[in-house]
Amino acid sequence: MNLEFADALSIAAAVRGGQFSAVEVTQAALTRIANLDEQLNCFTTVITETALADAARIDREIAQGNSPGLLAGVPFAVKNLFDIAGVTTLAGAKINAENSPATQDATAVANLKQAGAVLVGALNMDEYAYGFVTENFHYGVTHNPHDLHRLAGGSSGGSAAAVAAGLVPFTLGSDTNGSVRVPAALCGVFGLKPTYGRLSRAGVTLFSSSFDHIGSFARSVQDIATVFDVLQGEDEGDRICTKRPPQLCSPQLHQDISHLRIAIADDYFIQGAAPEALAAVQTVAAALGVTEYITIPEAQRARAAAFVITASEGANLHLDQLKSRPQDFDPATRDRFLAGALIPSSWYLQAQRFRQWYRDRVREVFQNVDIILAPTTPISAPLIGQQTMILDGAEILVRPHLGLFTQPLSFIGLPVLSVPIQRPDALPLGVQLIAAPYNEALILRVAAFLESQGVIYAPVVNLNQNSA
Amino acid sequence: MNLEFADALSIAAAVRGGQFSAVEVTQAALTRIANLDEQLNCFTTVITETALADAARIDREIAQGNSPGLLAGVPFAVKNLFDIAGVTTLAGAKINAENSPATQDATAVANLKQAGAVLVGALNMDEYAYGFVTENFHYGVTHNPHDLHRLAGGSSGGSAAAVAAGLVPFTLGSDTNGSVRVPAALCGVFGLKPTYGRLSRAGVTLFSSSFDHIGSFARSVQDIATVFDVLQGEDEGDRICTKRPPQLCSPQLHQDISHLRIAIADDYFIQGAAPEALAAVQTVAAALGVTEYITIPEAQRARAAAFVITASEGANLHLDQLKSRPQDFDPATRDRFLAGALIPSSWYLQAQRFRQWYRDRVREVFQNVDIILAPTTPISAPLIGQQTMILDGAEILVRPHLGLFTQPLSFIGLPVLSVPIQRPDALPLGVQLIAAPYNEALILRVAAFLESQGVIYAPVVNLNQNSA
Repeated sequence: MNLEFADALSIAAAVRGGQFSAVEVTQAALTRIANLDEQLNCFTTVITETALADAARIDREIAQGNSPGLLAGVPFAVKNLFDIAGVTTLAGAKINAENSPATQDATAVANLKQAGAVLVGALNMDEYAYGFVTENFHYGVTHNPHDLHRLAGGSSGGSAAAVAAGLVPFTLGSDTNGSVRVPAALCGVFGLKPTYGRLSRAGVTLFSSSFDHIGSFARSVQDIATVFDVLQGEDEGDRICTKRPPQLCSPQLHQDISHLRIAIADDYFIQGAAPEALAAVQTVAAALGVTEYITIPEAQRARAAAFVITASEGANLHLDQLKSRPQDFDPATRDRFLAGALIPSSWYLQAQRFRQWYRDRVREVFQNVDIILAPTTPISAPLIGQQTMILDGAEILVRPHLGLFTQPLSFIGLPVLSVPIQRPDALPLGVQLIAAPYNEALILRVAAFLESQGVIYAPVVNLNQNSA
Repeated sequence: MNLEFADALSIAAAVRGGQFSAVEVTQAALTRIANLDEQLNCFTTVITETALADAARIDREIAQGNSPGLLAGVPFAVKNLFDIAGVTTLAGAKINAENSPATQDATAVANLKQAGAVLVGALNMDEYAYGFVTENFHYGVTHNPHDLHRLAGGSSGGSAAAVAAGLVPFTLGSDTNGSVRVPAALCGVFGLKPTYGRLSRAGVTLFSSSFDHIGSFARSVQDIATVFDVLQGEDEGDRICTKRPPQLCSPQLHQDISHLRIAIADDYFIQGAAPEALAAVQTVAAALGVTEYITIPEAQRARAAAFVITASEGANLHLDQLKSRPQDFDPATRDRFLAGALIPSSWYLQAQRFRQWYRDRVREVFQNVDIILAPTTPISAPLIGQQTMILDGAEILVRPHLGLFTQPLSFIGLPVLSVPIQRPDALPLGVQLIAAPYNEALILRVAAFLESQGVIYAPVVNLNQNSA
């Protein structure tokens, strides 16, 4: 068993079965991080001692015959906006480095530790999660493991790249407008953004509360489903969390999908996509035997409204420091926050009003379809520093437009899984599997089918362990 | 039985018992309106023919031995922002007079008709409900029945004055920042603003959705409780309506209240009240044997935040017409809407963020108390046209400050009943009975006790029927 690219459930089975100890698995992950992360820049903090101590505790549990949990001994890491007890929560900001360490773990982190997983560190991101590139002014750019000259995507770039490079089998990130799905697509891994309100955000630094979700990255459908299942459950700490009873997805993965109504998003979701992105959608559609198209109406307006709400809410959160110490922000986030601070409340309210209208329209769409397919990003990973891209014949900015196809979906909290399409000798690309709220189980079943057909998978990346 | 000042339940009993027909009762109300409303200006529309036809149908039901409903034959009227099938919904605006008539009744109107009540017309208000005075630029000022030179209060001024003058036994209004409670206090009637979200607003012209409530006016506790009971129930038409199962209050009115913890609001709710307003609170406290005080923290900030949210949401609702035809607005509402349109979204979001904090603090207060007493208005009814008043030694504007004590409570949707204090030979004043959300039943039981002691009642007004 190659620990580097083993999936979480295989590792947990090996740990429970005594093939490896949790300490051995954790040490292997820490070694790989030490060898490779200098060239990738996924991690902002590695908690070596805590991780090894946690792993040793798991090993003692096993030795004593206690149940060590579903994710026994599985190393993982989290975007650095999740609270980790004893670690300062950066959220990508220099200003936050002045804060005291968190006194307790975020709910999601605590849930995963409770299931036996071993936290090894915190991951790079765009400052305050405001970006699609993980080109962080303070903490550096995260490199795409498939081509170190290219972006990993963002804002959860460190989370996606760490999984793609085999540093850990799964990570957590957050998604406000596409921050899980965009880097998942560009790095060639699975990225799940569940239904808004389904998973607790307690202990997570917020950005735009109307849209903030936590999500996860992994290299197999089974892993992504298992982590999602572990994270479900009530939590008083997040007011938005709707506290639905857990509805476990991993046992349902291999149910028949032939009765599901699946269609390809047309209109907005086809205009502006590069041919390779449309081809990726066609690959998935062909494997599913899907030829139908469906229209999500006014997606363009949804994206515009998402921009207004995000900028307004983000600016409000950071207003005091924008006034008192603007020089300490990442210039790429600061200027957008300042612009957001000037948006009239009437625009914000109009955007929220439109959101309700759009939610109703999309609910109608889902009366006729169960799963919708759309590209995750319009193109594959741009070069680091690349300012523009050509879409539909026009040269447009890279930075704001990588979320073209993700924003209109998180805008109303739909569950979406970005799946990595098999593209030999090409950069990774993702396809979004989209469902009505609370239908994560359907998405994961479709993904499991596609995985079983070999259509989607997270490729193994061969990084030069000596290049660091 | 004097029909003019009879309460709703006495009228319904008389109609069911055959003492009066519904048509006779309705005709009596229409006659009184015809005789008195020219000097009061409560009504903007009287639907004589429809009302008499509805009353005749009630009489036929009774003749056929069918149950005519809890409010059989009781005349009522509604603030002109409730939809009435066949009538154009004005919401106090000249611009709305251009609209087509409503095609169906608001849910609340339909519920009351279903219970046998007979709608006789629509009532005057501040334009778009934005005011505490009912000095409407387009449709005139509503006069206080206790002194025709004085304000009835607003924005539901027509609703309060119509009940005070005995034109109808009960009416509906709406309360965003005090628009039921202020006119109830100034006109000497009961005014109930229930818990936010408890009663459906479907078919009601909104003003500031975060705070908009419907409410009712009556001259007895039993009537106000009965109307509230009739209005409870599910309604798909209002997204905010939390659809709790009805919890009928009228059967509980005469339960013991000796175990209830009651206290007087101090701090903000004492500063700025005229001595007569504080004396009114002391009258109620003495009747209840209450000497304890309790602090609602940061009520001043709550009021400031309510202003920001109201102005922002109101401006957004009317923005198109503010741009295209500002000259058609009431100048007193237009200028505030225009100011509201310029509020930054960050202020709005900060106000909503504070609101959550304040809701939590007030929830803590209610762990130690069941009912809180506070003045409804700082003074009794000002003169029509009066610009300023002296409070706490300072001269301040009348118009925005009549809601001083009501705004911090509707801000978080607490249920409040304004009860009219017995003040022989003096203008009416109200006291607010305030409870935690969904505790209308407790408030109404305390009010029933006070009414049984003669401490609170709606006085009969002797208007000169010929002065019109």
